[in-house]
Order: sequence, then C-alpha cells, then structure tokens
Amino acid sequence: MTEIAVVATFVAKPGNEDKLKEALQGIVAPTLKEPGALQYDLHRDIKEPRRFVFFERWLSEAALAQHNQTPHIQALGKTLPDLIEHGEISVVAKL
Amino acid sequence: MTEIAVVATFVAKPGNEDKLKEALQGIVAPTLKEPGALQYDLHRDIKEPRRFVFFERWLSEAALAQHNQTPHIQALGKTLPDLIEHGEISVVAKL
Repeated sequence: MTEIAVVATFVAKPGNEDKLKEALQGIVAPTLKEPGALQYDLHRDIKEPRRFVFFERWLSEAALAQHNQTPHIQALGKTLPDLIEHGEISVVAKL
Repeated sequence: MTEIAVVATFVAKPGNEDKLKEALQGIVAPTLKEPGALQYDLHRDIKEPRRFVFFERWLSEAALAQHNQTPHIQALGKTLPDLIEHGEISVVAKL
C-alpha cells in the first residue's frame, strides 16, 4: 500500500468564517477514528482568516476513497456549497 | 512557543518539471537539519505533475523566519523564478 496525502483548501464566503470553522472542526474527530487516517490537521491561514487548509495523510488511495464515502464527509459535502466561495482539493504523493 | 505550519505550492513552467523537482528535493535534507523543522514533506500532485506541494511544520514563527534566511532557501529563491509559472506560500496555524 502506498501512502497518499491531501491538501484541501476552503475559503469562506464573507461572514461565514465561524460556521465554516465549526463545520470543518466537526469532521476532525470522526475522521481520526478511521483506520486509514495517518494525519488529519485543520489549519487557518494566519493572514487570511477566511481561509482554512487541511493537511491529510492516508494509508492508501483506497482509505481516502473510503473516507470520502463516510457519513460525516457526505454531510459536509451538502453544507459546504453554502459556506464557501472557493474550494480546492489536491491529492499528492510524497517524494 | 507556538507551532506554525506552511503549505507552499509551486507549479513548474511546462518542461521545467524535472529541474523544479530536483531543486525542491535539494532543500529537503538541509532543511530537516534545522532545529525548528518538525515536518518538511515535499509532494507531487498525482493529477497535475507540474505541481509540487510542501507541507511544513515549524516549532515557531521565529524558526520559520530563520529558515527563510538559510543559504539553501536563499539560493532556491534565486532559481525559482525561472522554473515556475505559479508559487503560493500560506502560513497557517493548526486549529
């Protein structure tokens, strides 16, 4: 199995920062319980407070795919469009 | 001291991927020798091979500032403009 990483960036619509922060923080605990989750760190940009960045490490691409099907990620997927003006998810491999 | 993190993204100009990869890989070893470097992972986007992403964790903002003054980072700063079409460095705080 080859480890995979994800950098996911979300920028809140003006005024939605607190709601977005709460929604993103809400998925950290259940995600860290997933067997393939090696690292799942949520950050906030120190210069742009509407910008949140996840850095994630997964045991395999299959573990990441399973993560994307979990109830907490499916639920987030439904609420995010109202909260964000920009979202970008990059799947990356460590060199 | 409060830990700080950095997500740094560099996109190579077409044809410069190998040179950029080599230049970025070249700073990993000397950086990991720096006392404040907690994590310094270089990745390549699995869908966009011209795109490279560092995920970094630093002991403090001071350690990061010191890193930016090191010879290997100063040297990289001189070569990057010729190699990349886009670069973005976000300093972020873990929530």
